[in-house]
Formats: sequence, structure tokens, C-alpha cells
Amino acid sequence: MDEQRLKALLEQVRSGEVAPDDALDQLKTLPYEDLGFAKVDHHRALRVGAPEVIFGPGKAPDHFAQIFARLAARGNNVLATRVSPEQIELVCEEFPAAEHNPSARTLVLRQRQEKLGKGIIGIVSAGTSDIPVAEEAAVTAEIMGNDVTRLFDVGVAGLHRLLSHGDDLRMARVLVVCAGMEGALPSVVGGLVGVPVIAVPTSVGYGAAFGGIAALLGMINSCASNVTVVNIDNGFGAAYVASLINRL
Amino acid sequence: MDEQRLKALLEQVRSGEVAPDDALDQLKTLPYEDLGFAKVDHHRALRVGAPEVIFGPGKAPDHFAQIFARLAARGNNVLATRVSPEQIELVCEEFPAAEHNPSARTLVLRQRQEKLGKGIIGIVSAGTSDIPVAEEAAVTAEIMGNDVTRLFDVGVAGLHRLLSHGDDLRMARVLVVCAGMEGALPSVVGGLVGVPVIAVPTSVGYGAAFGGIAALLGMINSCASNVTVVNIDNGFGAAYVASLINRL
Amino acid sequence: MDEQRLKALLEQVRSGEVAPDDALDQLKTLPYEDLGFAKVDHHRALRVGAPEVIFGPGKAPDHFAQIFARLAARGNNVLATRVSPEQIELVCEEFPAAEHNPSARTLVLRQRQEKLGKGIIGIVSAGTSDIPVAEEAAVTAEIMGNDVTRLFDVGVAGLHRLLSHGDDLRMARVLVVCAGMEGALPSVVGGLVGVPVIAVPTSVGYGAAFGGIAALLGMINSCASNVTVVNIDNGFGAAYVASLINRL
Amino acid sequence: MDEQRLKALLEQVRSGEVAPDDALDQLKTLPYEDLGFAKVDHHRALRVGAPEVIFGPGKAPDHFAQIFARLAARGNNVLATRVSPEQIELVCEEFPAAEHNPSARTLVLRQRQEKLGKGIIGIVSAGTSDIPVAEEAAVTAEIMGNDVTRLFDVGVAGLHRLLSHGDDLRMARVLVVCAGMEGALPSVVGGLVGVPVIAVPTSVGYGAAFGGIAALLGMINSCASNVTVVNIDNGFGAAYVASLINRL
Amino acid sequence: MDEQRLKALLEQVRSGEVAPDDALDQLKTLPYEDLGFAKVDHHRALRVGAPEVIFGPGKAPDHFAQIFARLAARGNNVLATRVSPEQIELVCEEFPAAEHNPSARTLVLRQRQEKLGKGIIGIVSAGTSDIPVAEEAAVTAEIMGNDVTRLFDVGVAGLHRLLSHGDDLRMARVLVVCAGMEGALPSVVGGLVGVPVIAVPTSVGYGAAFGGIAALLGMINSCASNVTVVNIDNGFGAAYVASLINRL
Amino acid sequence: MDEQRLKALLEQVRSGEVAPDDALDQLKTLPYEDLGFAKVDHHRALRVGAPEVIFGPGKAPDHFAQIFARLAARGNNVLATRVSPEQIELVCEEFPAAEHNPSARTLVLRQRQEKLGKGIIGIVSAGTSDIPVAEEAAVTAEIMGNDVTRLFDVGVAGLHRLLSHGDDLRMARVLVVCAGMEGALPSVVGGLVGVPVIAVPTSVGYGAAFGGIAALLGMINSCASNVTVVNIDNGFGAAYVASLINRL
Amino acid sequence: MDEQRLKALLEQVRSGEVAPDDALDQLKTLPYEDLGFAKVDHHRALRVGAPEVIFGPGKAPDHFAQIFARLAARGNNVLATRVSPEQIELVCEEFPAAEHNPSARTLVLRQRQEKLGKGIIGIVSAGTSDIPVAEEAAVTAEIMGNDVTRLFDVGVAGLHRLLSHGDDLRMARVLVVCAGMEGALPSVVGGLVGVPVIAVPTSVGYGAAFGGIAALLGMINSCASNVTVVNIDNGFGAAYVASLINRL
Amino acid sequence: MDEQRLKALLEQVRSGEVAPDDALDQLKTLPYEDLGFAKVDHHRALRVGAPEVIFGPGKAPDHFAQIFARLAARGNNVLATRVSPEQIELVCEEFPAAEHNPSARTLVLRQRQEKLGKGIIGIVSAGTSDIPVAEEAAVTAEIMGNDVTRLFDVGVAGLHRLLSHGDDLRMARVLVVCAGMEGALPSVVGGLVGVPVIAVPTSVGYGAAFGGIAALLGMINSCASNVTVVNIDNGFGAAYVASLINRL
Repeated sequence: MDEQRLKALLEQVRSGEVAPDDALDQLKTLPYEDLGFAKVDHHRALRVGAPEVIFGPGKAPDHFAQIFARLAARGNNVLATRVSPEQIELVCEEFPAAEHNPSARTLVLRQRQEKLGKGIIGIVSAGTSDIPVAEEAAVTAEIMGNDVTRLFDVGVAGLHRLLSHGDDLRMARVLVVCAGMEGALPSVVGGLVGVPVIAVPTSVGYGAAFGGIAALLGMINSCASNVTVVNIDNGFGAAYVASLINRL
Repeated sequence: MDEQRLKALLEQVRSGEVAPDDALDQLKTLPYEDLGFAKVDHHRALRVGAPEVIFGPGKAPDHFAQIFARLAARGNNVLATRVSPEQIELVCEEFPAAEHNPSARTLVLRQRQEKLGKGIIGIVSAGTSDIPVAEEAAVTAEIMGNDVTRLFDVGVAGLHRLLSHGDDLRMARVLVVCAGMEGALPSVVGGLVGVPVIAVPTSVGYGAAFGGIAALLGMINSCASNVTVVNIDNGFGAAYVASLINRL
Repeated sequence: MDEQRLKALLEQVRSGEVAPDDALDQLKTLPYEDLGFAKVDHHRALRVGAPEVIFGPGKAPDHFAQIFARLAARGNNVLATRVSPEQIELVCEEFPAAEHNPSARTLVLRQRQEKLGKGIIGIVSAGTSDIPVAEEAAVTAEIMGNDVTRLFDVGVAGLHRLLSHGDDLRMARVLVVCAGMEGALPSVVGGLVGVPVIAVPTSVGYGAAFGGIAALLGMINSCASNVTVVNIDNGFGAAYVASLINRL
Repeated sequence: MDEQRLKALLEQVRSGEVAPDDALDQLKTLPYEDLGFAKVDHHRALRVGAPEVIFGPGKAPDHFAQIFARLAARGNNVLATRVSPEQIELVCEEFPAAEHNPSARTLVLRQRQEKLGKGIIGIVSAGTSDIPVAEEAAVTAEIMGNDVTRLFDVGVAGLHRLLSHGDDLRMARVLVVCAGMEGALPSVVGGLVGVPVIAVPTSVGYGAAFGGIAALLGMINSCASNVTVVNIDNGFGAAYVASLINRL
Repeated sequence: MDEQRLKALLEQVRSGEVAPDDALDQLKTLPYEDLGFAKVDHHRALRVGAPEVIFGPGKAPDHFAQIFARLAARGNNVLATRVSPEQIELVCEEFPAAEHNPSARTLVLRQRQEKLGKGIIGIVSAGTSDIPVAEEAAVTAEIMGNDVTRLFDVGVAGLHRLLSHGDDLRMARVLVVCAGMEGALPSVVGGLVGVPVIAVPTSVGYGAAFGGIAALLGMINSCASNVTVVNIDNGFGAAYVASLINRL
Repeated sequence: MDEQRLKALLEQVRSGEVAPDDALDQLKTLPYEDLGFAKVDHHRALRVGAPEVIFGPGKAPDHFAQIFARLAARGNNVLATRVSPEQIELVCEEFPAAEHNPSARTLVLRQRQEKLGKGIIGIVSAGTSDIPVAEEAAVTAEIMGNDVTRLFDVGVAGLHRLLSHGDDLRMARVLVVCAGMEGALPSVVGGLVGVPVIAVPTSVGYGAAFGGIAALLGMINSCASNVTVVNIDNGFGAAYVASLINRL
Repeated sequence: MDEQRLKALLEQVRSGEVAPDDALDQLKTLPYEDLGFAKVDHHRALRVGAPEVIFGPGKAPDHFAQIFARLAARGNNVLATRVSPEQIELVCEEFPAAEHNPSARTLVLRQRQEKLGKGIIGIVSAGTSDIPVAEEAAVTAEIMGNDVTRLFDVGVAGLHRLLSHGDDLRMARVLVVCAGMEGALPSVVGGLVGVPVIAVPTSVGYGAAFGGIAALLGMINSCASNVTVVNIDNGFGAAYVASLINRL
Repeated sequence: MDEQRLKALLEQVRSGEVAPDDALDQLKTLPYEDLGFAKVDHHRALRVGAPEVIFGPGKAPDHFAQIFARLAARGNNVLATRVSPEQIELVCEEFPAAEHNPSARTLVLRQRQEKLGKGIIGIVSAGTSDIPVAEEAAVTAEIMGNDVTRLFDVGVAGLHRLLSHGDDLRMARVLVVCAGMEGALPSVVGGLVGVPVIAVPTSVGYGAAFGGIAALLGMINSCASNVTVVNIDNGFGAAYVASLINRL
């Protein structure tokens, strides 16, 4: 029951077609989603400029392609993450304009171009192995309408690499910092800037890295007060929040 | 906005006092809790015969006593769990009728007496150290209107104790089984009966018992298909669900 | 030694054919399973309307098919879970009536049709990735003689989807709720209804989801008192218990 | 060596007072902190409007009081968290204007009053036991110059409480959400709003809550894309980041 | 129903006093514990020469003393482990013959003296901090009728201490080896002897010793094939099994 | 330097051929393994009747076959565990007498036949999936010269299966009990017998079974005092210790 | 900007070519890496005699070969660890002088030969399965200019093997000790020598070895004071530190 | 049996007083500790300049004082760690020269003064709360004859503090770096220097710091190759190894 139908009901009450008691019954069983509050919710993601998003893993290629097509038909930007070669192939046949970023493992269909972010989002990664996660973040931030600066391979064991990019760090309005192994980079970056830092632990490492747990624990315990954390390898989520912040 | 006010609004629409557009605005911001659905929710717990419940730990004695008094004032049964001597003393001064069960660490004020459960709830415990948890379950089941049978100290290392109570087990409509250490009892009991078994891991044990984790893992992995599990030492929760089941 | 043989022995004692001492010897070595209590146990599962069940993983296809055939020969319903394509192929050749549910990864041979459940079992899932577990639960509940309502893809990040099905939730006599990632859905559903909720953590998620551990912990710590929990991905077990409850 | 002194050195080089080689030596040993970049860092925290902060635990009362006095002498606002009665007593003797918030366990000396945040920071807590953490967040946000709205005791097992505050949620520019036990509230709140949500797991709960680990895992695995997470009970850190965001 | 009563029933059947059908009814409800098998179970522990055992922690001193007195009344040896000063005081008043071993934290009442073990049980400990656990094992082995050799403070970081006792190790028929920290001693001892080694991880250590988990894991993964493991600090259990072995 | 050479040196000292000082030098650098004590160690395993053992995983088939041949050449029994089809094929070509047990995944070459165990070793398994581990134990016990009784598929959820084999349990001199999932069987068996029980957790199960951790924890926390534990799936190790015990 | 350029700038200031203010601007944006301190850092690794290092896993063979060639072009030694057959093949075509150590899974190009270590580095391994890690350490130590002694397969369950190499142990200036399973070897070795012992836990083992966690915990809790630890399977890192020590 | 007695035995063999066979018997039972190799071991610690060490926790004050006195009597330096006020009081009465360092919680009796270390040991700590651990390391290094430089409170969130001490870092011959929370400091320091870095995780932090586990994991996964790790809070052990290195 949408706003039109709700108004129609009220008109019927006014006109006497429907008695208040009967209207009351209808209102009492009114599905929640028909209220304004819920409607807001329904389209919330798109209104904040988020693309339609598909998480690739576990989806059969043809199923994936159908979802992609259906979302594309709405005219919004579409972002697919962690896509497989088979998924890419099928989609690109139908949507030659879809851009595949092999490093980020993303597939993007850009149907609307608007600059929504007010400043620059800095995407920082500790090592070269963290780049897929960092690129997923960068692609996400770009499709959500942000300018992005990439600072890759600036891990803490070679501080000069990071420090020589002090200007880039200071120019960002919000930073996404990706690191595996001991996950120390967000703490160091957090100490160098005065803006929010979103830390992404990556599954890079071996042995006691435990697939990203060591990095996650390190980031959650960061001694820098401007650091918050998302799930292991969740480049998309970090960039999503960074985009919300950059829009303020 | 309750039903009366909602009806009044609709009457105003009918009478023309309020225009449909203005009524629409009021309805769009209608707080969710004023709908029938939410109201149901609001009184749900009491309608299923649950007592008013207070969790003792962390509450200052006088604060605890005030909450107790306020809940008691509604005329319902009141159940307080894991109460401290100070909390008990303060409440019992004001409510001499409140029953303190030292083993269960509960305080109960019985203001209504109704039999709500259709059958017997069996409360089973593995060792004597598990009795506080089992008694918390028993007291909860009783205040929620059930007949309860207690089978305590029937752990798996002395099977004859358990097996000699076969009749008691088979007469229960639902069972709550409390065990610490390896937590094997629910699996064994589950294999002997055809009714739901709610397993309660207890923090009884030492070393690799890890405060109940070993028992919790054992119960979650039970090879008996009729076993579900609640949190460590959560005798109250197990009995709450058992009461819901026994009411069917 | 069944009841008939036991009675026969007693008759022989009465008639003097067997001396009391010899009867005593026979009774002392009487295997436990021949007592009434154990017999009950032996056929317990089937008497509560449970199907014969085969867990697919790790069984060679031909071995699997033989077990299936042997169980089918007893005339009961047969349920196989987590079946592989090879297992399905072999069984379906011999049992064309066997129904394969690809989503649930189940194989069912329905040889008896009886309605055993008194109400509706609601099967709820948070995301589309949780559907295999939810479908396993639904198939299990159906073969155990229950009416089932499916509410899929109603996760907590889009509450309106869940709330718009308030009637479906309230009409269920018991609910099975499947969720991965943070596993929050059972708590929310538990707060909306007054019946038992059986929570099934799923292995859906990545990174710190730890293959379902995060969801399992979330559910075990649920702030809703009517929630109990089964093992990760154990849709079968949840539906089994729900069926026992629905029969009361 | 600040900018003035650096310029002076260069002037001396130009005038011939200092030879290039000697200037080179001075520059080579130039302490990092004397460069502009480092200076920025040095005063960064205060420039973003953060108070001087003292973490109370483990500090002897007199040591604590001395630190407090020294920080207060700089004329900035001072915030002490998790303070003990002994620490409070000593400080309040000397600084009668210091405000002690018993619920938040904070001690605040307000010496400057400026509104730095552009919108409202919403502080949400699941249960009453989470209030100390939520209050620590609120006090922090306020001393950092923000308007704060508190929504306490709106846990997911009673959704109507949360939903009836839809307006408050939607009016916030950024939200801090504190929850223990299963930690589900941030996911639900995240689904209702389009702004960043900073989740704070609390150590509230028992048994398998593991002192906040269950809540932490739940939040890190949130199915809502606008959620980031800080350490267990870290209300201060969450509000710190929220303040940075609210200043944009 | 013991053997006598069972025989009496059969006599009544023979004599016609009791009809076979009535006897059948009695037999069907025959409690399991009355069968020979269960009886064996009931007195099993004492028949293998085990003392009556009381686990001290969590028992009120007067309750503890009553249990002690009741067990002592049966005329068997009594062993209490992890006893508190209050428990000791109360018991020793009534039983001046009770021996308190302060290092082992045990209280023993020796009422029967029989040598049941055929050889020597060697009790080995890595460090001086492991002695309480090792002494608990030694006291247990002695009260169960074994000769015991103690080799304490022979940890692996000073191999010469261990190796200089080669004869003692080789003379034992079974060994109990207690170690905390890395728990390496059982592997080394296991490699030096050809008899069963029962490893007891102790909670000695700090930091990543995790209260005995590191030692437990080390022992479970022992590269010596003759090592089995009991719970952390479970000196009693290790000696109990060693006693069973030494009796063969 | 063996005993003969040592004696020869002493003879040379006596005869004056070697000066005491020179002999002293030779003795000081005397390798440890040449002492009687070490020699004992060197042949220890074989003297206790253990076979030569090869752990299959990770060994290239041809490397594996070479080791097998070399060990076989010593004339002892050879036992290979967890062998792969390729390893089996290569060995069986050369050693047609080698017996492959597909269930146990073992390869055995029996070159000596002696009965070393004094009684029966009972090998018990909870489910059919635990049989590979149980069979590995049985094959090991047999090649070490023991009589073995197998009791498979007698898990705790169907107690009658276990209890009907009371005689078999009671006739064993030592028991090896294998179980996955909750690992409760050793506790139950331990309560039924008075001999040592060696518990083997298996990796059978899914979800929160954590590859055998749940079973391992359950067994380490067993409430039966006669239970000790070996590593997950370590059927060989359990049977090795059982054989040592059965030889006493 | 290196020292020469910095001096040139100062000369320009002196000569008046560059105004102090302009020089100031250049100095303020002076990249950190151009300072002497950072330069040291930049070439630090090579100056301590470390080879150029490539970690093989996750690198495409052609990408790997390009990196290898680029590093080789600098004229330094090149070390690649954990290389795959494809990576080896491509590199060896271009660099026939590259040495592949199949056991260590390393590829080494030796372009400079200098002895940098002052003594011998002893590389010790517990079992044959630990050899790949130990060989990685040995190859690393050798390419870093050290003499290496290998003591393999000297695990603690057969002490005589270790003790018979007492001289080799005592002659080393620093030791790298690799062990899986319970990881006890470093403690034993640490007790026999007076030099630093670097312990490398390996992922050798199964079940509760948890891929090296048990060994890691054992080593971190070593009762020998001269033991420090690196990550699981990190033979390279251990040898790197040993080389730094051996250079002192 | 020391060298003298061994030589005497050989002389007796030469003189014919003892027959070779009798000497052989004596040599076969020769205790290991009497060989040169073991003797070395026995006095190893002291020969490397280590003090006599007592670990305070768990020792009764009078017992502690006796041990202290006994060790002091040998004329060596004595170091007691983690001492309690009671232990200090008793010892200082008897040994007024004993120095108590309240921050390090150490008690030192200096009876010999020799400079054994060749260079400087740098002791670095991240925060002020890490100082007790860092001071324990410093005191240990000093009593072992080393020059020590302390760099405290130079955590990674304020890099300028660390970087401004570049000279101090570069002048150290080996570094001990103590950090809690995320434990990132050793990685950063490791990247700035070319000498061995021994990392000490501290138990500083709260919530997901898990008493030092997060820091331990971070350090074990350090991306700097020159970092090795000791147990949580083990300042003594780190300094012990640093002293061994500094002596080379």
C-alpha cells in the first residue's frame, strides 16, 4: 500500500465510502513497508549514490549474468565484486561497456556519472599482495562518485616510502588503509593525519597470520584514535563508508 | 498514538475537520509501536505467561530493589536470577512473601498461580556442581506454570543412575539437560527419549573446560538430533523455551 | 530377546521346565536392548515420524545407493542430505520416484504421507546464500509431516522485508531461522513472536565469519529468551526438533 | 628547529655567516619533528578539537592528578576516562569545575566551549548494561563540540523501541551504536539509515559472550555496508571518529 | 531389585504365586541398576582399589566435612583434593588421623593398607612450580596402593638433571610426567623409556602459556608414541590411570 | 663406540698401550649414543614389539617404497599408515605379501608373528565415519601382537547398542575408544569398565566440530577418571600405548 | 634529493641564485627519503649483506621471472623462496646459473661471493618433514655469506641422536632450530648451548598441531632463556636474523 | 664422577687394581652429568655472564628470601624479577645493598662488575604502560654487563617521537622493543635499523588485546625480517638474548 493508496483510503473516509472503523482495520494491518519510513529504507542505498552491487562468489555464471542484466536495466551504476572469469565473459558479451578491473576482480557498468564526494579518498596499501583489496576499494569509491588517490606498497618496514607521500596523505578527506600480516599500517597512517582512517585487514600472510586475524586484531587494538575497522578483505565495505563520509 | 486516537483521527477525516493530506502526514510519521503488530509485541512476554524477570549481576542493591518493587506493582509474578545476598535482603524486607532459593540463586514473588504447561518438564543435571544452573531452570519453569521433575547427579560416567530413571525421562514432554566438563549428558538423554531436549552447558570444570566452552561445543555437535543448545549457565533461557514448548 | 521370548521363559519357569536358577542366569545376561525400555529406543526415531536419514558426504555413490535401497525397503520415508550428483544419479535410476531438491541438496523418497504436525513451521533465512540450509530444513520438516511457510531473504539490514511478513511470523507454531555473517536474525525474529525459535548459524560469510563461528556465537548470546541453537549449517537438525515441537 | 629558525639558517648561508657545508651538517641531523610535516602531526590532535585525554586505569591517584593538572594548564579541555573514585577525589579538590559523570566514569574539565560538529551525533545502546560505554561516547562527543542525541535501551529483541525513534536515527549525521551479547544492533540500525555507523562491541554478557568477542565478531561481519567497528568497550574511540566525521 | 529378590520372584513364578504376565510387568520395569551389569558398575571404582574421592573447590567447609565423614564411615580410604585451609581444619578436628599434604593440597584418611600395584609408578615434574600437581599425583598413587618414585625439577632446559636419573626412569612400570610452559618433558621422557607415559599439562607459566593450553597442545602433539594426556593440572586423574595400569 | 670397543680401550689402558690421559680424552668425547643407556634407547621401540612404522602423507611414492623396502630388510614387521593408492601400488609390486587394509588406510608386512599382549584390546568406535581411525588402531594393535575385539558404531545416542556389548567391554584389558562430533563415548565407556580407556578424538563432524577440536576437548574433560587422550585421528598412537599396557 | 643536490642548493643560496624563501619551500617539501637517515634505510638491507629476496607464492610465473631479472640486473645475489616449478622453469631458461634447491624450494643466483659471517650458523631440524623449512634457512644463511652446519632429524623423542652431536651444537655461534608438532627441540637445544637460539615452528603435524600453532606456542613458552621465535615455517626470517648476529 | 675420579679409575685400570670388566661396568652406569659435556651445561648460564635469577611470583616471602641468600652466597650477581613488596622487605633487611627498581619490579644484588657487552643495547617501549616490561629488560641487560639506552614512549601513532631518535636507534648493536595493543613498534623499528630486533609483546591494552595476544600475533607476523619474538611481558628473556648477542 503506497502513499497514493493510503491517500485514496483517506479520501474514501472523508467521502463516507469507507467507515472509520473499517479504515482502522485496514490501517492496523498496514504492512510496514508501505509507510514512509520503510520506503525511505527501501531506496536508501541508491539515494546515497551507492551502485547496485553483486557479490560474485558462489553464483553460477548464467545466474550472475541475469542478476547483472536485471540491475543494469534500472539505469543505475552496477558494481560486481570478486568476479570469476566465467562470470566476466558472460556479462561482457551482453554489456561491452562493462569495465573489468583484473587487479580488483571487479566488473563495473557505469551508466550515470556524477561527482558526489566533496574531497579526495586516499586508498593506501602496505604491500603489493594487498593490492587486490585496495583496488576493490578504489573501484568502489570511484563508482560512488569520488576522486581517489592510490598509495600502494608503503608498508611500515620501509617508512621512507610512506613519509615521502606526506602531502598525499594530508590532502585526503578520509583514508582507507589495507594491510595484512601484522596490520600495523593504519596505526602509523592514523598518527600522521587528522581525518578518519578506515582499516581493512587483508588475508595476506602465512602461518600465524591466520588468514587475516592477526591483522584484524592489530587494527582493532590500534593506538591511533581515528581508526575504525571492517571485515578481512572487505575493500568494498571500507570504500562504501568512506564515500558516505566524503559526501558530508 | 493508540487505537483510540487513530480512530479519532479517522473520524475527523470523515467529518472534514482534518483534510486527507494532513491526515496522511500524521500517518506517515505514525510511530511504529502504535500499530497493532507492535502492541502485540509489547505485551508478548507477559501473554505467554512469562514472569517479569530481573538479571541480578551488576545492579546496585537499592536499584535492584526499586526495579523489583516496580515490576511487582504490576501484579505479575516476578523472577530475579543470580541475586546477591545484599539484593535479597533489601527485597525481602519489603516483600516478605518473596521466596529465595539459595541453590538456584533466585528470588521469586508469586502473585498469580496458573497452570500453563500441559505436561511435565524434566530438569536433568550431570553433577552436583551443575545444580545451581539446573535449579535456576527448575524455578523458572515452575514460576511459568509448569510441573517439574528433577533428576540431578545422573552424569554419563555412571550410566545406571540415569537409566534407573527411564520412566521419569519418558514421562517428560520436554527436557532441560545441564552438564559441564565434556557436556555429554544431553546426547545420551537425547538418545533415550523422543521429545525435544534443551541442553545447557555449565561452567563447571577446570583446565581445558574453558569455563563451559568444551561443554558448549560438545552439545552443539551432539549426535542426537533432538538437542538444541542455549548459552553457558543459562538455566533461565532453557526453561523459558521449555515452557513455551510445554504450552503447545 | 523380545517380550514374547521373555514371557515364554517365565512360562517355562512356571511349568518347571526351567529352574529359577537357570532363568536367573539367562536374565542376568539379558542384553539391554531386549528390555522394553531399549526397544522403545530402538524404534523411537521412526515412531516420532522421522524419516530414515542418510548423511551424504564421504559415502561412495554405490555404497550410498545400497544404504538408500535398504532403508527404502522398510517402507518408510527416506531422506538423504547433502547429496552429490553421483549419489543422486545412482539412486534416481533405481528409484524414479525419489525427489531431488537441488537447492536443498536433498533426495527424498516419500512412501508414506501423514500429517503429523499440528501447526505451521516457519522457515526463515537472512540472505539468498543461506537458502540451501533453509531448504534442507524445509524439506526435512515437510517429509516429517508438517506444513511449512518459507520466508527467505529477510535479513536484518533491510528490516521492512521482515516486518512486512509479520502475519506469517505470527502464524507459525515454531520457527527455524537461518543466518550467516553476524547471525542477528534469530534475535530480531525472537523479539517479534511468542513461540520457540530454533536458530541455525550458516557458514555464509568470509574473513572473520570463520565459517559460521561468528553467527553461532551471536545466536548463543541472543538477547531474545526464546532462541535455542543447533550446529552450523544443520538445517536438518533444526527442522527435526521443530517437528517434534509441532507434534505436541 | 621551526620554520623561522630554518629560514634564519638559510639567511646565514646567503650572508656567508654559515658555510654551505656546515649548513648541510645541520640539515642532515635536522630532527624530523622540526619539519613542517611533523609539526602538523605534533599538534594535530588539538587542532581537530580533541581534548587532552587521560586513560585512568593503572595510574596512581597522585600521578593521575599531576597529569591532569599539567594538561589543564595548557588551557584546553581535558577528558579523563575510566576514572576511579580516588582519582576523582584528588582532581576535584584542585579543580572544582571538573565534572564527574558517574555513569560514563569520566572526568571532564571544560575550559573552551566551541561548537565544532555540523550536525547531530546519535549515540545508541542496546541494553541498560551498555550505558557506561555509550555515556563515555556521549561525553567524548560533547567535549569535542558536538550536539548529541542519546537513544538507550533499544535492543533488537524489542524492535518497536528502536523503530519508534526513527526520526532521531534519521536526524543524526553519524551514529555510534553500542551493544554487547550478540551485538546485532549496529546491523539493524545500519539498515535504517544512510549515514556512517560506528559500532562499539561491549563486554556485556556472560558465557559464550567471551567478554565482548561475540559482539565484536558480529559487528565485523555486519551485513549492513555502512558499519565500521572499534575495540570492545571503546566508547571514547568511537566518539572520537564520529566527531572527526561530524566536522566535515 | 537385587539378585536375591530376582530369584525370589522366579520362585514365586514357579510356585504359581505370581503369574508369568505379572512377573513380566515387573521385569519390564526392572530398574537397570539392579542387573548384574549395573551392580558391577556401582562398586567398580572401589573394587579397583580407588579411594573415595572428594574434589574440594566450591564446597562449603561444613558440607565438605559431612561428605568426608560419610565416606569415611564406609571404611574405605578417603582422598580429598585441592582442599582449603577451612576444609582441612574442620575435617582434622574430627579425624586426627587424616593426613594433610600441604604441597599436594590433599587430605587423606588411610583406613586400609594394601599393596595393589605390581611395580613402581614414576612421578616426574619439570619445574618446582609443577610440584603441587605432581604431588597430587603421588599422593593419589600411594593411597591407591602403589610404590612411587618422585623425580622433580628435571625440566628439558637442563637435560643433565633428567639424564642422571636414567635408572629411576627405566625402573618405573608407568610414568606420570607433569610440565607447564611448553610442556616438552613428556616427549623427552617418552623417548627414553619403553613404558606408558601419562602427561599432565600444568597451568604453570604466563603470557602465551594460556593457563596450560600451550602445554596441553604440546603434549597432545607429542612425537613420542607412548604418551597420552589428561586435563590441565589433573594430577589425580593421571595417577588414577597409572594405578590401573600398574595393577595389570 | 660400542661395548666391545670400550672394553678394548680399557684393556689397552691396562696393558699400557694407551695412557690414562689419552684414554680420558677419548672418554670425554665419547658420543652419548655409545653408552648403554642410549643403546637401550636406540632399539627401544623394536624391543617393546613395535613394528617399523612409516607415516605416509607427504612422501613421494618412490621415496615411500624405498623406505618401506629398507625397513623390511631388517626382518621386522612393517606398518605404514595413511597410505595413498600410489604408495600402495609401488610397494605391493615388490612385496606381494604386504596386506593393504583399505578401511584403515594401512599397509602391513608381517615378517614375525608373536603374541605379545596378555589380554584383549577392545577397539570401540562411535559412528561408521570413525571406522578408518578405529581400524588404524586395530591394525596397529594386531601387528603389535595383540588379540583385538572390534565394537563399531555404538555411539551414545543409541545406548542400547553399546550396552548390549557389556561382556565385550568387560573382557578387554584395555580399551581404545574413537569418536568424533561431541566425543562423548569414552566417558560413557569409561564409566562401564574398570580398565584404562584411551580416547581418540576423530575429525568426524562439521561446523563447530572444528575438525576434531570439540571431541578432543570433550575427552580431555571427561568425567570418567580412567580416560586419557591422544591426538585427533591418532589411532596408531592409541593402539601403541594400549599395546604397551597389554604387555604388562 | 641526495647530499650532492642538497649541497648544491645551499651553494645557490650562498651565491644568491636562490632566495632563502625559495630554498625554504624546497626544504619544506623535501621528501623524507632524501635525508641521510632515510638513505641509510633505503639501502640498509643490501648493506647488511642480505640478498635481494622474492617470495614466490601468488606471483604469476612471467611476473616472477621479470622481477627476478630486474633484481639480478643490480648485480647483487638474488634469493627466491617457495618457488613453483613454473617459476623455476622460466627463470632457469634465462639464468642458467641460478641454483634450484628442490628440498628448500629456493632459487638462488649467486653474483657476489663474500664471507660475512664470523662463525658457524647451526641449522637443526626435529624431523625429516621439517627439512624444507630447515633447508630454506640453510640456503638463506649461505647466500648471506655464512658457514652452515646442518643437524637434521634430531628430534627430542630420540635424544641420543641430538646428544651425539654435542660438538656441532657447541661450535655454532648462533643456532636456528626448526620443529613441528610439539616444538620442543629449541628448549632442549637451548639448554645445551650458551648462544642465541632462533626457533622456527613448522606446520608439520596433524590434528591439534593446528598447522604449527602448537609448536609456536611451545616455543614462545620455552623454559630456555636463550630462545626467540619467528613465524611458522619462516626459515628465511630465522636465517636472516642469525646472519645479522653472526656478523657481529 | 668428575674428571679427577675418571682419571683415577683409569689409573687403577692401568695399575691392575681394577679389572677392565669392572671398569666397564662403572663406565656403563656413569651418570651423564659427570661427562665434560654435561658439566659445561651445568655452569653454562653463569659462564655467559648471566646472573642468578629468581622469578618472584608464587614464592612465599621467607622462601624467596632464603633462595636469594643462598644464591648470593655464591658470590655472583643476583636478579629477582616481578618481586612483591613482602619479598623486597625481607631481602633488603638482610642485603641492604640490594637495589630495588620499583618500575621494573626487580631486585638486584650486584657482587661483580664486569663489562661483557661490546656495544649498546637499545631498549624501546611504545607507551608509558609498557615501561615495567621495558625496565625489566633494561635492568637485566645492565646486570649482565651491558650499556643500555632507553627510548620510552615512542609508539607508532606519533612517529616523530621515534624518528627524532634515529641516532639512538642506529647506535645500538641490538634492540629490545616492547609494545602492547597492536604491537606495531618492532616492525617500524626493524625497518629503520640493520641489527637484530627482539620484540616483547606486553599485556597492555583491553578488549580484543586479549592480554597481549594481539601484540604477540602482530610481532610474529612482522614484515621486517630482522625481528624475533619472546613471550608476553618477558622483558627478562629478551634482554637475556640481547646480552648473548652483544657479547659476540
